[in-house]
Amino acid sequence: MTTATRSEFDQGIALTPHAAEPGRYDAELGAGWQIGGGVNGGLLLAVAGHALSLANGDHRDPFSITGHYLSASRPGPATVRTETVRRGRSLTTGTASLLQDGEERLRVLATFGDLDTLDAEVATSALPPVMPLPDECIGVEHAPPQLIEQAALLERFDLRLDPATVGWALGQPSGNGRIQGWFRLADGRQPDPLLLLLVADSLPPVTFDLGRPGWAPTVELTVHLRAKPAPGWLRVAHATRNLAGGYFEEDCEIWDETGRLVAQSRQLARAPRS
Amino acid sequence: MTTATRSEFDQGIALTPHAAEPGRYDAELGAGWQIGGGVNGGLLLAVAGHALSLANGDHRDPFSITGHYLSASRPGPATVRTETVRRGRSLTTGTASLLQDGEERLRVLATFGDLDTLDAEVATSALPPVMPLPDECIGVEHAPPQLIEQAALLERFDLRLDPATVGWALGQPSGNGRIQGWFRLADGRQPDPLLLLLVADSLPPVTFDLGRPGWAPTVELTVHLRAKPAPGWLRVAHATRNLAGGYFEEDCEIWDETGRLVAQSRQLARAPRS
Repeated sequence: MTTATRSEFDQGIALTPHAAEPGRYDAELGAGWQIGGGVNGGLLLAVAGHALSLANGDHRDPFSITGHYLSASRPGPATVRTETVRRGRSLTTGTASLLQDGEERLRVLATFGDLDTLDAEVATSALPPVMPLPDECIGVEHAPPQLIEQAALLERFDLRLDPATVGWALGQPSGNGRIQGWFRLADGRQPDPLLLLLVADSLPPVTFDLGRPGWAPTVELTVHLRAKPAPGWLRVAHATRNLAGGYFEEDCEIWDETGRLVAQSRQLARAPRS
Repeated sequence: MTTATRSEFDQGIALTPHAAEPGRYDAELGAGWQIGGGVNGGLLLAVAGHALSLANGDHRDPFSITGHYLSASRPGPATVRTETVRRGRSLTTGTASLLQDGEERLRVLATFGDLDTLDAEVATSALPPVMPLPDECIGVEHAPPQLIEQAALLERFDLRLDPATVGWALGQPSGNGRIQGWFRLADGRQPDPLLLLLVADSLPPVTFDLGRPGWAPTVELTVHLRAKPAPGWLRVAHATRNLAGGYFEEDCEIWDETGRLVAQSRQLARAPRS
């Protein structure tokens, strides 16, 4: 695939391996993935996940990946160093460090496998989020201008939020701590496992729906990838149930167009002041 | 505190630091913490968490801790090696490796802080699990003998399961994928942050309640510790909503006697065959 035809996301997570240093990859964090002055945490997790995917051979899918966010990333060059902790028959565990100017931004611990080898049984009891069709949802073009200005990455997304969960944009947060919507990439690039790492951190913080419009920096984000997503729209729902002591958890589910629960994530983040 | 008066749990997670090797601690994994031939994964996470707590100075509480289980542990000597990734003003991120005979059993990535410094606001919207009082629940003495034989660690617990979620013990699993109950240590040792790491992996696997009585090895377990637990009983509830492809997630909540949601955890585990 040439750069000319590469999608924005594939450019965003592109890596150059170092022949002389196995496990080292260079990246360029694009200004188009910024939010609130830093680079989006989901994009960073996808960059680190991409490096581990390249390092792990046929165990190329992140079954469980955890990132701890150490310092704010900014657009520009970055280096990812990977290390294999243990390679087993069906799973490989490894670590990745993402650095800029020698300062570590993100440390990752993850176990990878091959989603194509999993057995076909699906006994999921969870139900997909109920919401209006994409055309009846609220596009980002209706978001407050100050939100768009702070979030260049929204231009990469075709994100349609459920009207029932966007009262906060009109100054009327529901207080439920839940935001959901439809997600696809604006340039038509179809979903795959690495994209889901970005999607898990792509909706506005659930704290917006609690009347706290401020910045909510992620301390830790864990994503479980459970199946390869089908082409088409993704339904994304996230919520919090435990805002306390200045922190909150944010649980996210990602469903593909066939109705499969393809990813579950949870993050611990610092709560904005009320 | 002398060994003679130390609780079983404090003995179970006891560590000997090496003066000559900063960050190295020796442990002895006790036979009393076995389940199904291995040492309980929650106990292992508490041992590694204890090492990081000692290494991290005043950032002694695991705010978010993730363990990836690499090989089955057995009773006997073990070594924990810790490494500080980044020390910040209020949070310290570090890694720990637990090894036996040079083989790595568990790799941990965690961010620690001081729960005593958090602000007092509690805006939790989650509600504690509803169940009968401990005396009206089912003690482990009623568990099937083959379960007790395989799980020496149950003798360390005073665990009372909600009768509504123990049909599986009588051959009538509910199919809901949910088990809940009251927990305290049999020897009266009161809960603290490190104990909660054990409690997060202390109930029978939720797959029992789906009619799958087999072994469910943990791939990855993440615990968020949100407050220090009050003395007394803990209420513990865990559930799965996405058993698919041979894996399942298990979400656990731990509530203290005052009704505070003190910990939330999620693990990815291999599903037993149905």
